[in-house]
Amino acid sequence: MQVKAAVAYEAGKPLTIETVQLDGPRAGEVLVEIKATGVCHTDAYTLSGKDSEGLFPAILGHEGAGVVVEVGQGVTSVKPGDHVIPLYTPECRQCEYCLSRKTNLCQAIRTTQGRGVMPDGSSRFSINGTPLYHYMGTSTFANYTVLPEIAVAKIREDAPFDKVCYIGCGVTTGIGAVIYTAKVEPGARVVVFGLGGIGLNVIQGARMVGASQIVGVDINPDKRAMAEKFGMTDFVNPKEVEGDLVPYLVDLTKGGADYSFECIGNVNVMRQALECCHKGWGVSVIIGVAGAGEEIRTRPFQLVTGRVWKGSAFGGARGRTDVPTLVDWYMEGKINIDDLITHVMPLEKINQAFDLMHQGESIRSVVTFS
Amino acid sequence: MQVKAAVAYEAGKPLTIETVQLDGPRAGEVLVEIKATGVCHTDAYTLSGKDSEGLFPAILGHEGAGVVVEVGQGVTSVKPGDHVIPLYTPECRQCEYCLSRKTNLCQAIRTTQGRGVMPDGSSRFSINGTPLYHYMGTSTFANYTVLPEIAVAKIREDAPFDKVCYIGCGVTTGIGAVIYTAKVEPGARVVVFGLGGIGLNVIQGARMVGASQIVGVDINPDKRAMAEKFGMTDFVNPKEVEGDLVPYLVDLTKGGADYSFECIGNVNVMRQALECCHKGWGVSVIIGVAGAGEEIRTRPFQLVTGRVWKGSAFGGARGRTDVPTLVDWYMEGKINIDDLITHVMPLEKINQAFDLMHQGESIRSVVTFS
Repeated sequence: MQVKAAVAYEAGKPLTIETVQLDGPRAGEVLVEIKATGVCHTDAYTLSGKDSEGLFPAILGHEGAGVVVEVGQGVTSVKPGDHVIPLYTPECRQCEYCLSRKTNLCQAIRTTQGRGVMPDGSSRFSINGTPLYHYMGTSTFANYTVLPEIAVAKIREDAPFDKVCYIGCGVTTGIGAVIYTAKVEPGARVVVFGLGGIGLNVIQGARMVGASQIVGVDINPDKRAMAEKFGMTDFVNPKEVEGDLVPYLVDLTKGGADYSFECIGNVNVMRQALECCHKGWGVSVIIGVAGAGEEIRTRPFQLVTGRVWKGSAFGGARGRTDVPTLVDWYMEGKINIDDLITHVMPLEKINQAFDLMHQGESIRSVVTFS
Repeated sequence: MQVKAAVAYEAGKPLTIETVQLDGPRAGEVLVEIKATGVCHTDAYTLSGKDSEGLFPAILGHEGAGVVVEVGQGVTSVKPGDHVIPLYTPECRQCEYCLSRKTNLCQAIRTTQGRGVMPDGSSRFSINGTPLYHYMGTSTFANYTVLPEIAVAKIREDAPFDKVCYIGCGVTTGIGAVIYTAKVEPGARVVVFGLGGIGLNVIQGARMVGASQIVGVDINPDKRAMAEKFGMTDFVNPKEVEGDLVPYLVDLTKGGADYSFECIGNVNVMRQALECCHKGWGVSVIIGVAGAGEEIRTRPFQLVTGRVWKGSAFGGARGRTDVPTLVDWYMEGKINIDDLITHVMPLEKINQAFDLMHQGESIRSVVTFS
C-alpha cells in the first residue's frame, strides 16, 4: 500500500515527506494506522548522525498511537480496530528477560530491531524499490506502519491519540523510572536533574506516589513555573548556588536525596546526582543518555556507605502490561500530559518540531495525521 | 584496672605489648573481657599509616569475642556473664539510620568513634597518665575493653570465642554482603573477585542460599582448593584468560553474573565486576576498600541497560540483630569458620599475625587471651 511518511535520507538533513510503499503484515505482525506521534530527542539524536548505530535511509519515530488495521497470521492478542501504542521496547513474555521478573528489556527481537528490519530480517517499507530501514522497531513518522505483535500495547478506545502517544516514550520513561525502577515510596525526598520533558514526568511520578519533597535542578530559571505545576517543591539553579552543589542539595534534603534522577545525559551531573543521595540508602537513577564513550566516575566509598547507582530504560516499564495502565491514569486525571504537549502539527511540518526542540521552545511536539 | 594490651604507638611500627590502665564502664557502657580477637586487614591498613583517619597511640582490634564483666548505669540489654561480640558498626535501634529499615549504618556514636573516644568524648584507656585512643569503637587487642552497650551483640554461651570472634568482622562482611546487601536468591550465578577471607565467606554465603554457579576469580592459583571446599564451582585465573576477562566471565555465566562481589579493593577490578554482570538485572557489590582518592568508572550505558552498582559495609548486617544469628549458623554447621582460622597465637605474638597476613600465609590469625 501507499503511505505517507517523513523519510530520513541522511544524517544531518531535514526529513523529506514522501509517499512510500508499505508491505502488509506477515506472520506475527500487525498493520497499524498511526494517528499521532511525538517527536523525541532520540529521533533528533539519530537524525544528527551522532548515534553510531543510526541507519539511513530510514523512517524515524517511536512515540506513536494508532489503530490496528490488519493482523498477520497467528496474531491473537490484538485485532483490527484495537487502539494501540507501538513499543520500541517489546514484551514477548517468553524470553529469559521477560521471565526474569527483574527487567523490562525484552530481547526477543533486539538484534533485528537494531539492524532496522522486522524479525524476519526484511523491511516492509520501500521507495521506488529501495528498502527503507525501520527505526526502533516502530517507525511512527508514517501514517501506517507494520509492527511485531509483541511490540504493540492495546489501550482503551476513549483515549485521545494526540495525547497518549506521548506515553509511548517520554511519559513512561519519566514516571516509570520513579515507580518501576526506583520504587519511590510516600514521604521520600527526591531530586530531579534536568526539567525537560523527562524531568517533568519524573516530577509528576514522584508527586503521584506521595514524595514529600521534590527538588528540581536546572540552569534555566524559565523551567521553574511548569515544574512547580507538576509538583516540584524546591527549585535549585546551580548557577545561583555559592560553593559546591552537592552539599547544598544534601542540606536542602536534610541529609541527602532518598532518590535522585539524572534526566540530562551529562556524566558530571550523573556524579552529582549520585553523591547528593542520602548515606545508607540513597538511590540514583540515570535516565539521560550520555555521549558516546563518556564515562561516569565516583569514589567507591560512595557506594560502600550505602548509595546505589542504577539506570532506567523506558522507565523499567513492561510495554504491553504497564503502558495501558499509564493510559488509564491519564484518563483518570492522575497524570498530566496535556500541558506537556506544547505544539501540534501535521506531518508536512515535522521539521519544525525538530527546530522547536533544538531551540528549547517546545516540551513536546506532536504530529497528527489527518 | 590494669589490662594487657598491644599498643600501636605510631604508624608503620610493630605493636608493643603493654600493661595499660582501663577505667570502668560509665553510663551506657559495658566492660568486656576479650577472650579472642581476629587480626584483620583493616587493622593492618590503619597501622600502616595509609588510613588518613588513623589515630595514634591507639589500641587496635575490632574482631573480638568475650564476656561481659561489668555494666554501667542504665545498661539493660546485657548483664555480667553474657557472652558478646563487640560491634564496630553499632545498632542503637533509635537513630534515623536504624529506623530507616534500609541500612545497617547506625550513626548514633559515629562522630566520637571516628575520633577514637567513647560517646562521652573521653578515652577509657591510658598509659602512665597518657590517654590511648580507642579504635573502631572496639579496641579488642586488649584482654579487657570498654564498649557502648549498643556496640555489643549478645551471643549464645556455647559458642567458642576463638572461632566466633571472626563473625565480628570477616564472616559477617562476606556472608552478609550475599544475604543482606545483594539478597542472592537460589539458582543465581555469582562471580567473586578475590579469594581471601572475605571472598571465601562470600562463597560460602552464596552456597548457603543456593546459588547454582559460584565463580571465583583470583590471580593466585593456590587459592583454588580452599575456595572449592567453600563452594566455588568454577575457578578463573585472569592471567590464564586469553583476551578480555569480562566477556570470558559473561560467557562462563551464560550471559553474565546475576551478582558479583569485589573483595579486593582494586578500582579496576570493581569495573570488571560491574561489567561482567548480566544485562537487565546483574547487581555488583563493592566490599573491598580502595586506596584513598581512587575512583571507579564505567560507561553509564552499563547502568541504563539494567546493571546495578552498590556497596556493602559489615555485610549490611545489623550487629545486635544479625550477628547472633550468624553465631547460630556456625554452631549448626551451616557455615564453616574453622578452616578459615589458619593461625592461633597469644597476644605476645600478635605482630606475627600481621607478618603472616602480609606474606599471604594466613587466611585469618586469631589471638587468644589466657
